[in-house]
Amino acid sequence: MSLRLTGIGQLATCPADNPQGDAGLVNDAELVIADGRVAWAGPAAQLPRQWASTEPWDCQGRLVIPGLVDCHTHLCFGGWRGDEFEMRLQGHSYQEIAAAGGGIRHTVKHTRAASRQALIDKARSALDDMLALGVTTVECKSGYGLEPETELRQLRTYRQLDADHPVDLVPTFLGAHVIPDEYAANRSAYIELLCQDMLPRIAADGLAEFSDVFVEQGAYGLDEARQVLATARELGMGLKVHADQLSDGGGAALAAEMGAVSAEHLEYASEDGLRAMARAGTVAVSLPLASLYLREHYMPARDALSAGCRVAVATDFNPGSAPSYHLPLAMLLACINQSMTPQESLMGATTIAARAIARHDRIGSLRPGYLADIAVIDAPELNHWLYHFRPNACIARFKSGIEY
Amino acid sequence: MSLRLTGIGQLATCPADNPQGDAGLVNDAELVIADGRVAWAGPAAQLPRQWASTEPWDCQGRLVIPGLVDCHTHLCFGGWRGDEFEMRLQGHSYQEIAAAGGGIRHTVKHTRAASRQALIDKARSALDDMLALGVTTVECKSGYGLEPETELRQLRTYRQLDADHPVDLVPTFLGAHVIPDEYAANRSAYIELLCQDMLPRIAADGLAEFSDVFVEQGAYGLDEARQVLATARELGMGLKVHADQLSDGGGAALAAEMGAVSAEHLEYASEDGLRAMARAGTVAVSLPLASLYLREHYMPARDALSAGCRVAVATDFNPGSAPSYHLPLAMLLACINQSMTPQESLMGATTIAARAIARHDRIGSLRPGYLADIAVIDAPELNHWLYHFRPNACIARFKSGIEY
Ligand SMILES: [Zn+2]
Ligand SMILES: [Zn+2]
Repeated sequence: MSLRLTGIGQLATCPADNPQGDAGLVNDAELVIADGRVAWAGPAAQLPRQWASTEPWDCQGRLVIPGLVDCHTHLCFGGWRGDEFEMRLQGHSYQEIAAAGGGIRHTVKHTRAASRQALIDKARSALDDMLALGVTTVECKSGYGLEPETELRQLRTYRQLDADHPVDLVPTFLGAHVIPDEYAANRSAYIELLCQDMLPRIAADGLAEFSDVFVEQGAYGLDEARQVLATARELGMGLKVHADQLSDGGGAALAAEMGAVSAEHLEYASEDGLRAMARAGTVAVSLPLASLYLREHYMPARDALSAGCRVAVATDFNPGSAPSYHLPLAMLLACINQSMTPQESLMGATTIAARAIARHDRIGSLRPGYLADIAVIDAPELNHWLYHFRPNACIARFKSGIEY
Repeated sequence: MSLRLTGIGQLATCPADNPQGDAGLVNDAELVIADGRVAWAGPAAQLPRQWASTEPWDCQGRLVIPGLVDCHTHLCFGGWRGDEFEMRLQGHSYQEIAAAGGGIRHTVKHTRAASRQALIDKARSALDDMLALGVTTVECKSGYGLEPETELRQLRTYRQLDADHPVDLVPTFLGAHVIPDEYAANRSAYIELLCQDMLPRIAADGLAEFSDVFVEQGAYGLDEARQVLATARELGMGLKVHADQLSDGGGAALAAEMGAVSAEHLEYASEDGLRAMARAGTVAVSLPLASLYLREHYMPARDALSAGCRVAVATDFNPGSAPSYHLPLAMLLACINQSMTPQESLMGATTIAARAIARHDRIGSLRPGYLADIAVIDAPELNHWLYHFRPNACIARFKSGIEY
C-alpha cells in the first residue's frame, strides 16, 4: 500500500537533528508513503522514477507537517471545574476555592468515583478532537487517583485507548502529583506506598513508560522527588519532572541530575538549571496554555534556547489550569508570548516533543523510515498557518499512513 | 413554520436591559421558534399549552445562547501578512517591517489590486467559518482602499454577501483608517475627499450604516476626526471611533461628544473618557485578540464597567493585528485577561454587541419577538463552555429560525 502526497505547497520535514529554528521547509514538494512509513520526501522535481506512478493524493498547494505530538497531558480525569473558573474571575482566591472543595481535590474525588468506562468515554472524546487537529501521539499522565486502584484505572484507560484509538498514547505515572489528603500528616508513608507498592506493580505490568513528579512548594520537595525518581529509574522507567512552575525550586537541576528525558513548565527555572538540562539533554517542555489560564509568567523559552535546551510545546490538558487540548493554540501562544519563531514552535510540537517521550527516531519527522504520521494544513505555508488562528486548519491526517 | 428547542440544559436569554453580569440564565428550558422569531422561551415546566405539540428539536442538555454578534471586523481585504508575524517574532521593528513594504500599506496595496470576486470569495470563506462558530451577525468595515473605487468595492462586497450569505452583515465605512501615502503631504485634501466625495456617495447609495475614524497618532487627529464624524452624522450615518488603542488620545471623549454608538479598542482610555461614554450611552468595544497578537495592554474592562459603560467583545478580524475570527477565543481572553465573568463576556458578544450596531431591539437576545438567531453549544452550561476551550463547541446554529 503506497500513496504519494502531491502538490504540497510547503513541506516541513522537521529533522530530529536540525537546530530548533530550522524545520526543514521544502516548497513545492511531494511525499511518498509506503507500508505506513515515509518512503521518500523532497522537492517534487526530484521525485525518483520508482514512485512516479504511485497513487496520488493532491494537497492542492497546502502545508504538510508531521503529525503533531502532544507530549504533556493529563488526559484522563473525572469531572470538570468550570465553576472555579467563574469564581476566580469574580476575585475568589485559590484558598477560598479549595475550602469550597475545589482545586485538584475536586478532580481526585471525581476521578476516584468514575468508572473505567466513563473515563474511557471521556478521554476518547478528547482524543477524537485532538486527532482532528492533526495530533497523532499523546503523552498522558495518571495522578488524579493518588491511591493504587485509581492510578491503575487511569493507566489501564490509556492502555485500552492506545489499543482502540488511532492516536498513539504514551502513558506516564504521576502518582507523585500531590500528597493526598489522607497522608497529609504522614508524607513519608505515601512516598513509601509509591515506591514500594505502586511503582513496582506499574513497572511489572508495563502500564507506564515514564514516571513523573511534581516538584513544588505544596507538592514534593527535592529529596522526596529524588527518592521517587530513583526508584522509577531502577525499575527501568524513563523520568519526567514538573519543575519550577510557580517558583524556582531547583526542579530543573534535579531533572538534569537524574537524567530525566524532560522537565515541564519551568516558568521560573534558573539559568543554571536550564544549562544543566542542556548538558544532560533534558528537553524543556513549555506549557503556554497553563500560563494563559493562570495569568502567570510564561516559560522563558528564549533563555532556554540560548542555554542550549531543546524546547517542546505541549498543552498540559487538564481540568484545572489548562482545560484545552488545542495544541495549535499553544503553538501560537509560544510564538506570541515566548517569542519562538513559527519554525521553532513547530519543531517543539513535533520532533522535539517526540524527543520528550523518547521517540524522536520514529515519529515527529518526515524523513524516510519515519512513521507516516502526517497532518495536511489548510495554509500555503507555516507562517500563515500559525498566525491566522482558526478553529481547526487541519483538513486531513494520516496515522501510520492511514487516513482518518 | 415553528420549532421547539427541547432539553435545553441552560438557556442564556441575554435580555437587552439586564446588567451586564446577568445573562438571564434559565436551567432546564425550552424555546419556541415561530416565523423566524422567538415565540416563547423559559423553564420547560412553564411551557404554554399552545406550544406543547410543536415539532421538537432535542438539545440533549446543552447550552443555548443567542447567535453571536461580531460587532467589529475588517472582513474584506486582499493578501495576508504571515511573514510580518515571523519578522516581528525575530525581533524586527514595525519601522523595519513598514520599510520592507509591510503593515497596512501591504494590505491596501493588495486590496486595491483584488477583484470584487476575489474579495467576495475570500470574505465568504471566513463567514462560513464564523457561522459554524455560532456567529450570526457581523459588522464589517471598509478602510483598505483609501480611495473611492476600492472603498466602494469593499462595501459592495459586503452588500452582496449580506444578500447571499445566511450571516447578516452590517457595513461600516472606514475611509478614515489612515491617511493614504498619496496624501501624506496634503492631509486636508484627503479629508476633503472623504467628506465631499466618498461619504455623500456612500450615504446616497446606503452602502454603509456607520462611519468610523481611527483616532491615533499616525492616523487621525481629534479635529480631523470630528470633521469626518460630523459630516457622516449630517448624512444620517451612525458613528464609531477607533479610540485610544496605543495611547490616550482623547478618542473616548470624542466618541461620547459626537454621540457615537460605540468606541473601539480603548486600551488606554482615561477614566474621564469612559465616564463620558457611559453618560452618552456609547458602547465600549473590547478587542482582546488585538491585544494578544500585539502583546499589548488589554482594555481595562472592569474600569469601563465600573464607569457605567457596557462592554462589547469582538474579534477585530484583520490581516495584521488580529488575524483570527474566533469570537469564542476573544470571549475567553476577555475573561482571563480582562476579568470579565463568563456572563459579562457572553452579554458582550450578544446583546451589547448588538447595541454597538444599533440592533439590540432585534438580535442578541432570546426574548419573544427577537429574531431566532440561536447557537447550540456542546456544554452543559456557560462556565463550562468558555473555560473548556475547543476548536468549535457550536454544534448547531439557526439564523432567523432556519438551521444552517
Ligand atoms: Zn502537567
Ligand atoms: Zn479595527
